[in-house]
Amino acid sequence: MIRMEPALQLSPLVRAKIKHAKIARLATVDAFNRPHVVPICFCFDGSAFFTAFDKKPKRVRPEELARARNVRANPCVALVIDHYDENWSRLWYVMVRGTAEFVPKSSTGERRQVIQQLKAKYPQYKGGILPEDAPILRITPKLVACWGDV
Amino acid sequence: MIRMEPALQLSPLVRAKIKHAKIARLATVDAFNRPHVVPICFCFDGSAFFTAFDKKPKRVRPEELARARNVRANPCVALVIDHYDENWSRLWYVMVRGTAEFVPKSSTGERRQVIQQLKAKYPQYKGGILPEDAPILRITPKLVACWGDV
Repeated sequence: MIRMEPALQLSPLVRAKIKHAKIARLATVDAFNRPHVVPICFCFDGSAFFTAFDKKPKRVRPEELARARNVRANPCVALVIDHYDENWSRLWYVMVRGTAEFVPKSSTGERRQVIQQLKAKYPQYKGGILPEDAPILRITPKLVACWGDV
Repeated sequence: MIRMEPALQLSPLVRAKIKHAKIARLATVDAFNRPHVVPICFCFDGSAFFTAFDKKPKRVRPEELARARNVRANPCVALVIDHYDENWSRLWYVMVRGTAEFVPKSSTGERRQVIQQLKAKYPQYKGGILPEDAPILRITPKLVACWGDV
């Protein structure tokens, strides 16, 4: 059964599942109200989610990515973190709905903390593909829905 | 780099990755243009994707689920199938954008085929949680974006 949790009072179990997840899927909506969804690397500081536009190969500059254009047009986003298991009694997901905005370049303290947290979580980021000036999206949860073994 | 493929001319590699994936994430948009995203079980018949509203525990009747209400309000959907790997050169995703509609109860041939395909793919469905009259969503791809090792 789906259980709603107030965004900032997540249970310890939900927090642990979020903490251990390496990947989430971020859904955004374009200016024509069509959804877009891609896997993202992320970190969670206990109240907000952050994802950086890193230097994994891309066709366009980070600022021009669909998800960037979309959150400028419509800040409402949804994020899902889940687990698939052949034993369906172990399935679970946590869906976060909220708003996304870019962390301003001037918020140097917040930016530094996020970059540090991402590098600690993903050793792959140590190779230089996460520059200090990478665009960072802050996702502030408004509603969290939990389903299954969580 | 993101590569666009015409929906019905997917490469054999993309088709193989889709075929082996047990889970996808389905993004829909509600009447207020806010996105919603959940993991789904699915099958692909070579041209369309199908997902059934099965009897995994839910708070409301299948017809009242957010994703059902959303596709009635806005048929545009996005689906992502992806792979996470600690070796980031092996990351990939396939994002499908298209439209969703319910397969009519009267389309008994199509419904029977989908239920058969789902039961063949997911042995878990053999336990009776996928009734013959389950609501089935048909997702017709319009645009497919491929990224990474795919």
